[in-house]
Amino acid sequence: MKFIRVNTLTNEITEAAAASEYADLGGRGLTSSIISKEVHPRAYALGADNKLVLAPGLLTGTSAPCSGRLSVGAKSPLTGTIKESNVGGLAGQYLAGHGITALIFEGKPEREKCRILVISQNEIKLEDKNSLRGLGNYAVVEELQREYGSQNVILSVGPAGEMGAAVASIAGTDMEGRPSRHAGRGGLGSVLASKGIKAIVIAKPANPFVEAANARQFKESAMEFARSLNESKKALRNYGTAVLVNSVNGVGGLPTRNFSTGHNEEALHFCGERLHELCQERGGATGHPCSRGCAIRCSNVYHDEDGNYVTSGLEFETIVLLGSNCGLNNLDEIAKLDRLCDDLGIDTMEMGVTLGVTMEAGLMPFGDYTMMCEAIESVAKGTQLGKVLGQGATVTGKILGVERVPAVKGQGMSAYDPRALKGTGVTYATSTMGADHTSGNALPGRGGLDCHKPDGQVKLSQELQTMTMVCDMLGICIFVGPLPENMPVMTTLFNSFGDRQAVPEDLMAMANKILSIETRFNHAAGITQNDLPRFFRTEPLPNNNLVFDVDEEELKQINFYC
Amino acid sequence: MKFIRVNTLTNEITEAAAASEYADLGGRGLTSSIISKEVHPRAYALGADNKLVLAPGLLTGTSAPCSGRLSVGAKSPLTGTIKESNVGGLAGQYLAGHGITALIFEGKPEREKCRILVISQNEIKLEDKNSLRGLGNYAVVEELQREYGSQNVILSVGPAGEMGAAVASIAGTDMEGRPSRHAGRGGLGSVLASKGIKAIVIAKPANPFVEAANARQFKESAMEFARSLNESKKALRNYGTAVLVNSVNGVGGLPTRNFSTGHNEEALHFCGERLHELCQERGGATGHPCSRGCAIRCSNVYHDEDGNYVTSGLEFETIVLLGSNCGLNNLDEIAKLDRLCDDLGIDTMEMGVTLGVTMEAGLMPFGDYTMMCEAIESVAKGTQLGKVLGQGATVTGKILGVERVPAVKGQGMSAYDPRALKGTGVTYATSTMGADHTSGNALPGRGGLDCHKPDGQVKLSQELQTMTMVCDMLGICIFVGPLPENMPVMTTLFNSFGDRQAVPEDLMAMANKILSIETRFNHAAGITQNDLPRFFRTEPLPNNNLVFDVDEEELKQINFYC
Repeated sequence: MKFIRVNTLTNEITEAAAASEYADLGGRGLTSSIISKEVHPRAYALGADNKLVLAPGLLTGTSAPCSGRLSVGAKSPLTGTIKESNVGGLAGQYLAGHGITALIFEGKPEREKCRILVISQNEIKLEDKNSLRGLGNYAVVEELQREYGSQNVILSVGPAGEMGAAVASIAGTDMEGRPSRHAGRGGLGSVLASKGIKAIVIAKPANPFVEAANARQFKESAMEFARSLNESKKALRNYGTAVLVNSVNGVGGLPTRNFSTGHNEEALHFCGERLHELCQERGGATGHPCSRGCAIRCSNVYHDEDGNYVTSGLEFETIVLLGSNCGLNNLDEIAKLDRLCDDLGIDTMEMGVTLGVTMEAGLMPFGDYTMMCEAIESVAKGTQLGKVLGQGATVTGKILGVERVPAVKGQGMSAYDPRALKGTGVTYATSTMGADHTSGNALPGRGGLDCHKPDGQVKLSQELQTMTMVCDMLGICIFVGPLPENMPVMTTLFNSFGDRQAVPEDLMAMANKILSIETRFNHAAGITQNDLPRFFRTEPLPNNNLVFDVDEEELKQINFYC
Repeated sequence: MKFIRVNTLTNEITEAAAASEYADLGGRGLTSSIISKEVHPRAYALGADNKLVLAPGLLTGTSAPCSGRLSVGAKSPLTGTIKESNVGGLAGQYLAGHGITALIFEGKPEREKCRILVISQNEIKLEDKNSLRGLGNYAVVEELQREYGSQNVILSVGPAGEMGAAVASIAGTDMEGRPSRHAGRGGLGSVLASKGIKAIVIAKPANPFVEAANARQFKESAMEFARSLNESKKALRNYGTAVLVNSVNGVGGLPTRNFSTGHNEEALHFCGERLHELCQERGGATGHPCSRGCAIRCSNVYHDEDGNYVTSGLEFETIVLLGSNCGLNNLDEIAKLDRLCDDLGIDTMEMGVTLGVTMEAGLMPFGDYTMMCEAIESVAKGTQLGKVLGQGATVTGKILGVERVPAVKGQGMSAYDPRALKGTGVTYATSTMGADHTSGNALPGRGGLDCHKPDGQVKLSQELQTMTMVCDMLGICIFVGPLPENMPVMTTLFNSFGDRQAVPEDLMAMANKILSIETRFNHAAGITQNDLPRFFRTEPLPNNNLVFDVDEEELKQINFYC
């Protein structure tokens, strides 16, 4: 296990073996452990005392299916909590290929800087690169690929991050070298930018695959897992994550016009089937993998009417939050907003929730594409309005005097209305990350429960949060399903990779320990909110008359503090 | 005990005896008990579910010295915590004179309204008064006194409150009928305005004094207490609260240029002695009482060079936070800023801290009086910048990317740097109200401690917080001193007023129970922060090299949750 530390004040780069306490940890397990140990819970998120940690999952870089995930961790400027933002693309696999277990950015330069970190086979160095200042991610990647070669993977921060926006993402290139994969949540792009780092260039490692200790057992399990995913995930492959549009709209939980209703009658214009059709017609693609060895391939490449590339990885969350939630139902316009956010380095989800709140306040009409573009650009420009919107939905709602702000712990909600999808609502309320579906998403039918009913949702969410953490530690994409039936194969992969003897319960216990570490950090930061904004309990969804009615006392049962 | 409830949606006004659980409660004891019982901790502060409660202290309206205080309580739009803001002037005494124990505003009109509540001897009624919309407090008082007579006391909200600003105060008239006394902290002005109430007109009660049950014992104690205060508080009487300028500057804890240093070399231009001199020279006044029966009389009347009235009650906190902390050392300019804030209905303290942060961000130079006026006016106008500043220092600091934000639980700090005044620092960190000196102020020398040293400060703060609550329950001004030596006379007054047999420990126990109620409310709202912003521990004051070094674990000993 190799830790690389980049001191962004002194420019020193040091390499050291990890302390023994970090053995068997990877991904979110590692980012949260390091942040918890090395960052004060009340540190200023954009200050010298915060750190930004990149850690591939334990299996990232191996040939295990869907194991391309990279965890990015820091104290979040958006939520003030500990934060892990999880991203696909090739960065995680390349870092793992270089044997880097954790890449840790520390300190802060005394004045603003614009530098890149270049990781090649034999060297890691910081370089000033003022020519990149203020550039969008697409231009950054173009310039760096020209200079360093197109086989390099690039992580980068757009102008929103340079402005210190709490909605700023870190972009990572995909298999085609496009900055289309984003560690979006929690404003971690601004943490990296605050340390004077605009981009990280990672050379293709000499040995592309990390080898398992028990290679035969690993290969057998991996192949069997891949076969099963290949078979069971056809809908995701065909329609992308947008396959969820009809399903979530069907249960009446599709956020529409700032969560004022859960049913959008125009959903046929932006559902997975429509996305598939347009991608096929225009020479785009569905069934596109975001990283090497993906057995699901839920990504897509979206072209415009003239057949020109617009964006890649047009996801359910983006479509619903920047689209339906903002009263915008035109998929072409949504795709252009996705591209704009990707280029400027903005989390499409937080931006969508923020714009929904802004529209509710009357600053712009719902569905006004042109004004949405201007508003998004204002964040990157750092105008007065842009500085407000750049702080996300909660702060924007405070300033504009909006009561209906769908956010928890300062983070805007994902694209599932918790009144109709109550298990996900429990996760929003209790997760260490704020309103975050990737902490434990109870999709319709999950756990055999009726998502409209409160019964059993607390237990389901707790289990999902634990199993999601298992995925996040291993670097396995949660789209494989953070489900009991997948725990045995994950455990086998974990065991054969490191020649270990764990049973699934051991991995679950490790996961709960990390959740406890995250919870302690948040408590020490003074952040304990464990419920949804009040209006979800008092204002029924007009389409199905549902409120969030999971018992407040029962929510308290979810307590990872141990 | 009489509760008046004003339903601001239906316009119903009801009168009822208080439930027995509220017996022996007044002031903050009553506001916090009612809010805790009737308002959900996660209610939207400017929504229909929040309530605003006005409760005179238990002794308010009697002839006890310094007993003119009125508690105003609600869930705060600034902090999200339970909040009590405490105000002098005549409003409390008049409400008590009408036998009103608590005046409770509930609900919220469907559309914006501008109404007044008129309390006369025999009637309480709501009236539309659109002519007052957008008016400053001085104009509101002028118009209402013209219509209802100058003997009425008026509570009112300025345009900042109408804009929903979290820095909005509720103004109350003083003995001369000027809106110079403010329930400033926590944005309660915007809560009242959100309910469509611009002002409350309170007729002079037929029986001006509330009589004690044991009149002889009451009178004796009250007279003895008054004599003692008259004797011991001469400095406050002569120099106003500004007497603290030299003392706090002397211990190196006078907030200067956004808490970047604790010593201001220009303090002679705005210290109590200078204030006294100018008040004398120009026909103003010191030794001015803010309410009937004050034995201290620390207020003042400040005139300009031409002898014209500028403002009244130019206080230490205002002078330091809008002055020194903003790099402004000219007392005439500070007085005009005080008048401007009083007129627009803005908390001078939160505004001063917010402007200090704004200056640190470089939006305006330190000490620029003209830009300060414009910035303050922008809050009342609701411009884009004004909406940001109107949310106070914490939100402004987030948006402007400032690390040094002197605030706790969303509330800007009072005019004592906690690195030099460590007991007050403990109170800032642990109080249920956020960074609030009126929750327990450890002035230099208090408790026989060295305010520069951490030793004993936790215990001192805890005792001060309890004894301050005793004052706040009784309606006694904290300037009498929330000290052990004053507890016996307060207990005697409490006993003789209600024919009770309490000992001081009983009052302290009641106080701790209310602190526990407040703590529970905050915890249920997800607010538990119990420490100062990190920079107070890491960045020494340049003038004395002090940091805030009270042990973090020791701070946890302050826990009123019981």
